[in-house]
Amino acid sequence: MARILTGKEVVAALREDLLGRVAALGERGVVPCLAIVRVGERPDDVSYERTAVKRAEGLGVAVRRYELPADAGQAQLEAVIDEVNADGAVHGCLLFRPLPPQIDERAVCERLAPAKDVDGITAASLAGVFAGTGEGFPPATAQACLEMLDFYGIPAAGRRATVVGRSLVIGRPVAMMLLARDATVTLAHSRTADLAGVVREADIVVCATGRARAFGPACFRPGQVVLDVGINFDEEGALCGDVDFVAVEPVLGDDGALTPVPGGLGSVTTSVTMAHVVAAAERAAGLR
Amino acid sequence: MARILTGKEVVAALREDLLGRVAALGERGVVPCLAIVRVGERPDDVSYERTAVKRAEGLGVAVRRYELPADAGQAQLEAVIDEVNADGAVHGCLLFRPLPPQIDERAVCERLAPAKDVDGITAASLAGVFAGTGEGFPPATAQACLEMLDFYGIPAAGRRATVVGRSLVIGRPVAMMLLARDATVTLAHSRTADLAGVVREADIVVCATGRARAFGPACFRPGQVVLDVGINFDEEGALCGDVDFVAVEPVLGDDGALTPVPGGLGSVTTSVTMAHVVAAAERAAGLR
Repeated sequence: MARILTGKEVVAALREDLLGRVAALGERGVVPCLAIVRVGERPDDVSYERTAVKRAEGLGVAVRRYELPADAGQAQLEAVIDEVNADGAVHGCLLFRPLPPQIDERAVCERLAPAKDVDGITAASLAGVFAGTGEGFPPATAQACLEMLDFYGIPAAGRRATVVGRSLVIGRPVAMMLLARDATVTLAHSRTADLAGVVREADIVVCATGRARAFGPACFRPGQVVLDVGINFDEEGALCGDVDFVAVEPVLGDDGALTPVPGGLGSVTTSVTMAHVVAAAERAAGLR
Repeated sequence: MARILTGKEVVAALREDLLGRVAALGERGVVPCLAIVRVGERPDDVSYERTAVKRAEGLGVAVRRYELPADAGQAQLEAVIDEVNADGAVHGCLLFRPLPPQIDERAVCERLAPAKDVDGITAASLAGVFAGTGEGFPPATAQACLEMLDFYGIPAAGRRATVVGRSLVIGRPVAMMLLARDATVTLAHSRTADLAGVVREADIVVCATGRARAFGPACFRPGQVVLDVGINFDEEGALCGDVDFVAVEPVLGDDGALTPVPGGLGSVTTSVTMAHVVAAAERAAGLR
């Protein structure tokens, strides 16, 4: 049976580390604080927000919520970002996306101060991931993949990694982060010919297409490590990943490994966001 | 015999296009102008500068040269960049790198105004390549690879491209540009296991390691398109690429293609730099 890379142990380890750092900040009178900015009431966003608020509370991270109506205008949203930027007590900002169509999303993202960009949405953060400038933060989901590999002692150096999906939220950044770890990285996508063949070549696979159970057993071989970033709902409304877990797990064999959905990368991503808020507070306090 | 993808036809086509655009700018009283900033007298830099100045003259692009001594300090170089930024008559800046060890190269690069960053050295330009923000310009050498493919009618969409070398000057940016063209892109490097095998998988190979004739016949198979970015000198002081041209050309067969060194991508890169200066002048004049 393949090793199941569950998130809860990674979350616990991150929690251990963060509690100490939050305490150290507390001694200096600093409470790390995350601003959550939501436009409208999309169920995904509301559900993720609930999880994030609970996780923050458990770590001693404060949360400030900004809720705007679904028909909010550009100026209204930008005023919120400006407030977040100006408020020295707020260290990081999580902005739910995609934003409604009346909003120029790129302009809103660019308005956020890179120092508070804990989810890697500014050009400065993206350049940080691409070029290693150290500014901003990588997108939390991409970082979660690395945390998962690190926790389970899975090296990337010298190994082949295939990332399927090329979004700026996960595909491209995680590819660059695996490259920085000396993996040989292939970026595949919807236009890739023989996708199954390309995926089978890899030692480490990151599935990030957002299509429910799109990766079946034909895509895999024994011994692969599969990170399933997907958070999808199937036709019956059940939460599932991009990988057909039940069918794929046996193919990977005893030497293989697979993250489940739910219970895999999603919860680690929430912890990474909190870790970034704490790091931003540390930087602001001159501790890093 | 493999098709030899020579640069001079690409240069001629770019020239044709640029002459018309320079004339149109001239009608508005604008002369596109490139600042060339050189610290010290490295033979490579001096030689490239000579080529660039000649190319600029032939196109009606003005050149303003800034030469600093090899022991120039940070403040001295930054003052030059500030002058370039402030001068409305200068549209682009080519800064020779690597800079001497006493200089903080990253700080100098970041000081340049992205609008004048015709060689893609600022974080804004790098984010532009990575994220498609449209700011700045891609590095000229990376763009030259795409110009070569375009001119010779070689599509990238749906094909496998392997880029060997992961520098910010060429490897990573060209990988992102090929990805934007819908290629399935693999980034390989010095830590890649079975490099020859990884290179043989690709339909399009970009060799950008900077090691003279490091790619021998064992790395290739018939039908591949090979772009050799290397500009190296062999033990006898002869200019050569990363690919062992004489040994590799027969392996590629009649369906294959290969850029020579010299006579390949190098001269196209110079034209791309000029095209970026013209585009920067057009943007400044509100023509784009």
